[in-house]
Amino acid sequence: MLYLKRCAARLESGMDPEINYCSVCGAKVSHKVPAGDSLPRHVCDACQTIHYRNPKLVVGAMPIWGDQVLLCRRAIEPRYGKWTLPAGFMENDESVAAAALRETLEEACARVALGDVSTMISLPHISQVHVFYRAELLDLDFAPGEETIELRLFREDEIPWDEIAFRTVQLTLEHYFADRREGQYRFRTLELEPRE
Amino acid sequence: MLYLKRCAARLESGMDPEINYCSVCGAKVSHKVPAGDSLPRHVCDACQTIHYRNPKLVVGAMPIWGDQVLLCRRAIEPRYGKWTLPAGFMENDESVAAAALRETLEEACARVALGDVSTMISLPHISQVHVFYRAELLDLDFAPGEETIELRLFREDEIPWDEIAFRTVQLTLEHYFADRREGQYRFRTLELEPRE
Repeated sequence: MLYLKRCAARLESGMDPEINYCSVCGAKVSHKVPAGDSLPRHVCDACQTIHYRNPKLVVGAMPIWGDQVLLCRRAIEPRYGKWTLPAGFMENDESVAAAALRETLEEACARVALGDVSTMISLPHISQVHVFYRAELLDLDFAPGEETIELRLFREDEIPWDEIAFRTVQLTLEHYFADRREGQYRFRTLELEPRE
Repeated sequence: MLYLKRCAARLESGMDPEINYCSVCGAKVSHKVPAGDSLPRHVCDACQTIHYRNPKLVVGAMPIWGDQVLLCRRAIEPRYGKWTLPAGFMENDESVAAAALRETLEEACARVALGDVSTMISLPHISQVHVFYRAELLDLDFAPGEETIELRLFREDEIPWDEIAFRTVQLTLEHYFADRREGQYRFRTLELEPRE
């Protein structure tokens, strides 16, 4: 549960832990613009390591079964009880596609065949990029993972639009249904501002 | 120069600095699987912070002028002297598109109008994802940035294929020229294994 709480806190804030000490040598760090750089970084004056911070990829899948989409009701904060697509932080040593498959298996215990990428959405205010694949659900043997209360297949007119956990999920679903009506699926790159 | 050397070292290894100490409180960290997690992480036993590591996004642009593409000859390691597209690590607080524009300005002092994303290429062995946009070069007032020896516009038959710095750049160029011949540009997600 500690892990889940920490994951939730990270997802909500999008922030890495503070950098007060050098993770290499343990000395105090300064926050300054390194020579030749243009942005302030956390720099260790003892061992010279520069501790960069970079945006994180959140990767997910939209599991499709006929005219229905599989959504997960969240068992964790943020947005406890709201509906989402299976998605999570990409891990080191995996590909974007592998991350989408892993998250779908972890959160929905579901096996999918990935299609094309549907959306890549930048959230600069929390230093995240969300990437969603369209995916074909291979069977109906799905089951809630540890972070999921329940799973359900929704037709377009059943989607609980007011109960969707994240704007990137809502946009991905909206574009999917719009493209389906047009009969042509497109890849979209979008950028979201902070909520009002 | 220190910064440039460190950037080069990071790009080459794709590795973050070691984690021996907690960046929050300065205590020694353990490497273990946190409760509820499935992968080993660097965990601080003093303040409980989990220090996650995640893949990094490298973002770039393919600046196009008529039937020519602008390439940069690298003034830094790795691949000093080889040709590349303007690209680099995405920063916190920016969008993917903003990163592509910034890198193009920094490395080629070039102004472009971004088109669609051309490639998203996973390199799981170095925990990176490379994303390249097609881009229209807006004028010919480009000039080498600090990390660039020289810039040149190349027609397809002039591209120095044996002197391209990175496989992701080579693939992005190859797909662009193939798509141009077909008259239809596609977005591709790819995955690369380590070099032999």
